[in-house]
Amino acid sequence: MTEGDPLVAAKLQSYVNGDWYTGPDEGRALFDAATGEEVARISTQGVDAESALRYAREVGGPALRALSFHQRAGLLKALGKHLTQYTAEFNELSTRTGATARDSAFDVDGGIAVLFVYGSKGAKELPDGFVLPDGDFEQVGKAGTFGVRHVHVPRHGAAVSINAFNFPVWGMLEKLAPAVLAGVPSVIKPASQTAYLTELVFRRIIESGILPPGTVQLVCGRPDGLLDALTGQDSLSITGSATTAQTLRSHPVITSRAVRFNAEADSLNFSMLGPDAVPGTPEFDLFTKALVTEMTVKAGQKCTAIRRAFVPSALIDEVAEAVSARLAEVKVGNPSDPSVSMGALASLGQRAEVLQALTGAAKIVHGDSEHFELVDADRERGAFLPPLLLRCDEPGRAEPHEVEAFGPVSTLLPYDGAAQGVELAARGEGSLVGSIVTHDPDFARDVVLGAAPWHGRLLVLDREDAKESTGHGSPLPHTTHGGPGRAGGGEELGGIRGVLHHMQRTAVQGSPALLGALTDVPAAPEAQL
Amino acid sequence: MTEGDPLVAAKLQSYVNGDWYTGPDEGRALFDAATGEEVARISTQGVDAESALRYAREVGGPALRALSFHQRAGLLKALGKHLTQYTAEFNELSTRTGATARDSAFDVDGGIAVLFVYGSKGAKELPDGFVLPDGDFEQVGKAGTFGVRHVHVPRHGAAVSINAFNFPVWGMLEKLAPAVLAGVPSVIKPASQTAYLTELVFRRIIESGILPPGTVQLVCGRPDGLLDALTGQDSLSITGSATTAQTLRSHPVITSRAVRFNAEADSLNFSMLGPDAVPGTPEFDLFTKALVTEMTVKAGQKCTAIRRAFVPSALIDEVAEAVSARLAEVKVGNPSDPSVSMGALASLGQRAEVLQALTGAAKIVHGDSEHFELVDADRERGAFLPPLLLRCDEPGRAEPHEVEAFGPVSTLLPYDGAAQGVELAARGEGSLVGSIVTHDPDFARDVVLGAAPWHGRLLVLDREDAKESTGHGSPLPHTTHGGPGRAGGGEELGGIRGVLHHMQRTAVQGSPALLGALTDVPAAPEAQL
Repeated sequence: MTEGDPLVAAKLQSYVNGDWYTGPDEGRALFDAATGEEVARISTQGVDAESALRYAREVGGPALRALSFHQRAGLLKALGKHLTQYTAEFNELSTRTGATARDSAFDVDGGIAVLFVYGSKGAKELPDGFVLPDGDFEQVGKAGTFGVRHVHVPRHGAAVSINAFNFPVWGMLEKLAPAVLAGVPSVIKPASQTAYLTELVFRRIIESGILPPGTVQLVCGRPDGLLDALTGQDSLSITGSATTAQTLRSHPVITSRAVRFNAEADSLNFSMLGPDAVPGTPEFDLFTKALVTEMTVKAGQKCTAIRRAFVPSALIDEVAEAVSARLAEVKVGNPSDPSVSMGALASLGQRAEVLQALTGAAKIVHGDSEHFELVDADRERGAFLPPLLLRCDEPGRAEPHEVEAFGPVSTLLPYDGAAQGVELAARGEGSLVGSIVTHDPDFARDVVLGAAPWHGRLLVLDREDAKESTGHGSPLPHTTHGGPGRAGGGEELGGIRGVLHHMQRTAVQGSPALLGALTDVPAAPEAQL
Repeated sequence: MTEGDPLVAAKLQSYVNGDWYTGPDEGRALFDAATGEEVARISTQGVDAESALRYAREVGGPALRALSFHQRAGLLKALGKHLTQYTAEFNELSTRTGATARDSAFDVDGGIAVLFVYGSKGAKELPDGFVLPDGDFEQVGKAGTFGVRHVHVPRHGAAVSINAFNFPVWGMLEKLAPAVLAGVPSVIKPASQTAYLTELVFRRIIESGILPPGTVQLVCGRPDGLLDALTGQDSLSITGSATTAQTLRSHPVITSRAVRFNAEADSLNFSMLGPDAVPGTPEFDLFTKALVTEMTVKAGQKCTAIRRAFVPSALIDEVAEAVSARLAEVKVGNPSDPSVSMGALASLGQRAEVLQALTGAAKIVHGDSEHFELVDADRERGAFLPPLLLRCDEPGRAEPHEVEAFGPVSTLLPYDGAAQGVELAARGEGSLVGSIVTHDPDFARDVVLGAAPWHGRLLVLDREDAKESTGHGSPLPHTTHGGPGRAGGGEELGGIRGVLHHMQRTAVQGSPALLGALTDVPAAPEAQL
């Protein structure tokens, strides 16, 4: 054990009720994913989350609601600019989560980008006011004296988010930005494993003084009283396992008070190679390249990573070969070494879970978890795994569609024709994302429309859009993120769509004059605060 | 006991798997609310709801998805026309639920109107296609080769609805219409108490042959295996008590598979008299009149009825007097007698529940449940109550905001100023509807914007719009119906908004050409079926 990282507090702090709070106990150690050294300690004692909720409602909410949409958008832009100054320091600490420079860019730059996009969208797509119209005035009755208009107003609760370990920065910021824009304060509970990075970024946010008091709070430790104190004005958003999502979703307070609930949970995302994309076509290469990217970025610890790679059965040998050849170039090891292309998993525990999830329904065609080269790292203390390419020639089996190995693992599965492809994609019972790699527009359309009911996002990749494509694994702030069924049934981001999840839509009925004046409010209406 | 009503089967039937089904048992009796006579019997045995779900998914879904939005809209219009022929028969049977002619109009005509409005909106506001765009193509990247477009497609499950006893016709049709338009088949479970009326209307729907096979199914009896068989593609929508909603919402299948869930539950709706609306103003009369209407229509058994009537404290005596004077004109009794203005509650059990919900926190200022005049009806066998106007001079007490007497009961509560009015309205912890009766636009706006976070619908009533106003208690197909928190956190209707609850929104990324072609599909895409 070393004395810890200079970038982080020896013991992580919470930020509640307008002040930093340190747990009274020694706390438990959080380890560097690659070296096994202690990075920081986190309290195992409770934090008074009930009073944090109260502070959010009584201080943060009114402060945000006093601002117009454009003013709130301005906060996000300012915050983005402020945090950009610290990217180097965030990236440095990010290494300790097992992340390479490329991985950190997804988390850190990706997270800051969400602030800028929401800042920009808020200014461009929302009115400079306090009330957001939803559709036009609709006349009901013949004389035109009466009608209805729908409006969105900020909910008067807190947006509570329980985040996952894999994106300690993006995970916080992608949930924070739409809430701020909506006018709703946040209470953030990071996953312990990588909370030191969340805490550092959060500290920079607080230091900036950009966000009004009570707007954001951080709970590092056990959030005492959190669930019991939720009301129908609050929302609870969780990114994590299906089991955790279910436990939270069925909490009696959530179910009795209709607390707004959002989950991003397990997801066995697919990528499908079109039958036209034979070896030699640009799409064949795009497919194999994307698959390797998704297997190796964040060591495959992405809720959007490709778990099921559907390949026309006639092409499966060639695909296996081409992907294996690319994987052979992947260098696993010390994430701070620039020659390394894949870092460590977040913890030894995560590594054990991945190995346990290799069901035996598929055979390994590339990679050996026992024997693999490691660059500048300790095999025992670091949570390393090589990329593992599996192949299952019985695509109708249950396991490949149901069991997620949350690491650098993907399974090749044969299919024939769009109809079977869609049927197999749906076997995931709801996923965050699927991609179709083809230059055949009819095939693309058939699979997109067929698979859409089970997916929150679908990407069509071909030679035309590849250069500008943001890729299979990246949920953009512009695109909805979430999926039905197994993926949790939630929805985040998607531009302004994500803002509306924090607002109440209300149908207002009355005369056209009254409804016209409703959204044309010069200052924050006092009764709204 | 008589031999039953000629309009209904002696024993109610279910309609599942394309055929009528009669339970093997004798069943239990359903009684005329006003006379206590047996109307029909309903099986207490299970109906195979699991296979009904399968039939909906395998037969009904594909049949609906093969039609365009305009074709589905056409079905709704045709169905509306067909059912209109039978209004007299529906109204006649409706009397046995305790409903007067006015009450039946809300249920029967109101229900059929939903079909026409959705038919019309589908034709006017939706494309004549199979895929509904959500926003425009959005370019991501500079060269314009890549971007995102969001689309809505029909979910591949069933829309299961569990309906309440108070609107046996409207309750079925308001849930059915948006689902049909979305392309999603329905499985309907009516409340036993008034299921005979639902069954009659349903029978006319099936006889018409207008809806494709598998599109609608009816479960009269215990829905065996229903919850366990739900998937992430299905939705469960319940109108009923908060307790039932909570039980269903926390079912492990709902929570683990992210079954889409919608509840309309308890709601302590308010109406607020503006300080400007002193005796002598049109608004004073509008307020007292609306309150009496809401207390007496359906004998106050409406989830949208006014439970809390907020009145400026200086005016409360005069309001109590004016409302009492109107209530004194109300004739309670045999609902088929045209002189009667308020019929019976749905059952003796309902009457007992209402009396139990009179908490003692308020005093009765008008009405006596022990002594009241009854027109042409039996006091013992019919579930009659007089309208009961209560008054609670301590508006801060918990009971008036928390305990709902689901009958002809409202409580007058004093308030002073918009801020206190909003605060008291919010004490309901989420309601379906509130109304503000005022000719002061500033007061109206302050209360609307202040109360909106807690309400799904708000009505501003004044001399300008009163003539055309559809009233406090009527959720229109045009307006969202639902409310946060205690009201269940759900949302139905609201025009096309209600259709989207049955669809999956998917972000599709690709080249502009591909995304442009996506919604421009000449026939139902095979892979979508």
